Amino acid sequence: MTSNDRDFIRSIERGFTVLSAFGEQRPTPTPAEVAEATGLSRPAVRRILLTLQRLGYVDNDGDRWRLTPRVLSLGRHFSASHALTEAAQPLLLELADRTGESASLGVLDGTDVVYAARVPVRRIMSINVSVGTRVPAYATSMGRALLAWESPDTVDRVVSGSGFAPLGPATVTDADALREAVGAVREHGYALTSDELERGLITLAAPVRDASGVSVGALASSTSTGRASVEEFRDAVAPLITDAAERLSSRMGFTGH
Amino acid sequence: MTSNDRDFIRSIERGFTVLSAFGEQRPTPTPAEVAEATGLSRPAVRRILLTLQRLGYVDNDGDRWRLTPRVLSLGRHFSASHALTEAAQPLLLELADRTGESASLGVLDGTDVVYAARVPVRRIMSINVSVGTRVPAYATSMGRALLAWESPDTVDRVVSGSGFAPLGPATVTDADALREAVGAVREHGYALTSDELERGLITLAAPVRDASGVSVGALASSTSTGRASVEEFRDAVAPLITDAAERLSSRMGFTGH
Repeated sequence: MTSNDRDFIRSIERGFTVLSAFGEQRPTPTPAEVAEATGLSRPAVRRILLTLQRLGYVDNDGDRWRLTPRVLSLGRHFSASHALTEAAQPLLLELADRTGESASLGVLDGTDVVYAARVPVRRIMSINVSVGTRVPAYATSMGRALLAWESPDTVDRVVSGSGFAPLGPATVTDADALREAVGAVREHGYALTSDELERGLITLAAPVRDASGVSVGALASSTSTGRASVEEFRDAVAPLITDAAERLSSRMGFTGH
Repeated sequence: MTSNDRDFIRSIERGFTVLSAFGEQRPTPTPAEVAEATGLSRPAVRRILLTLQRLGYVDNDGDRWRLTPRVLSLGRHFSASHALTEAAQPLLLELADRTGESASLGVLDGTDVVYAARVPVRRIMSINVSVGTRVPAYATSMGRALLAWESPDTVDRVVSGSGFAPLGPATVTDADALREAVGAVREHGYALTSDELERGLITLAAPVRDASGVSVGALASSTSTGRASVEEFRDAVAPLITDAAERLSSRMGFTGH
């Protein structure tokens, strides 16, 4: 199939635009607030909200609208159709047990890493992410682990699409440094970032590969500089993450090394 | 706002229909398979897939289409906009620790309970649900906990919309028995089902209420009849679940008892 503009259905785009206008910043917006956030006209927003309401994805109390739990089912379809997230679950539980830290599976979506599965641990100060959270690939160890075994085209697309904003005191802020960090993953088997996505955050990730040898996901664990030094975290966690990623890769059909 | 048929945007409905055609049964369908599953024409399916691809929600390898991780972000918007799921997280972790079983938060959507948050535990035989999984309210302890403090209108709607299929050897299969079980939750503070949703599954759930006194969620834990008797599970788990549900209710503004 090849696509052209005639094939693009504008009202489907608008439906998702309105659905994406809900969130932490605007949990229960009014139609006027949705119009302002999306750039759509108020009459258009009104019709779209009423349509999404008939479909069960949003509901209202007077002028305030909210998402219904039905939107969770859309994400469920992704997990159900991806063997990786199911296969990762027992390994994430084991990692969380062994490291005492949350364990996550990330996948690449455009220039972002999206959390596809996660086992949290109990702690007062924990990292506030959940399934569906997006973080920029360039500033994260998961992003580098994912790019390590990607096609050159994909690496080029992510590198050229990355903003390289200095999110933390040590963020990699140019294409060459990112390419070098990605290359180092192929050598060491894991990526480690500290003070990049945010000050005080250390994360370590290893690539998960499939039968074709391409990265299909990354397993990661994080801590804060207040709990461990980079060296302590690396020594304790790198062997566990790379071991888990190797086992998951082998379940996904990877036979190389 | 009041809705009428003129306000309903058919192509938005079709976009979600196609998105929902992906899943466990058809992880990577062809356009022809999507057409068959949805009842839409092949040209319509083709245009919708190309539109969803431009929006980043699906992608293809040749004739096979798949969901991208971007659909997970739609569910994330729900969690981010619902204080309940955030507030439940530490209590679910604590419950999983204390019971040694997975702990879940469910919310009502139509006649179903949807898992809105979950902390799994490691075990060879575990219960295969994740955030976004749907189960019928009538056959589950979470459904009864959710209905216990709902408006009579909502209870009537769920009762009359329930199929009462005998999913397990002991499933409640009529409206009167369900209403009685719901009433018992108000008395005991929790619901317990065994052999209802499926043979060998025991679940126990307690209602979470908000400032208005209405049920906004249910906390639950499950086990199998092979691991514990109903009495053992009730004695061990009921006090923990009701205590956690009371604390979560109080965080949601509930001041009654």
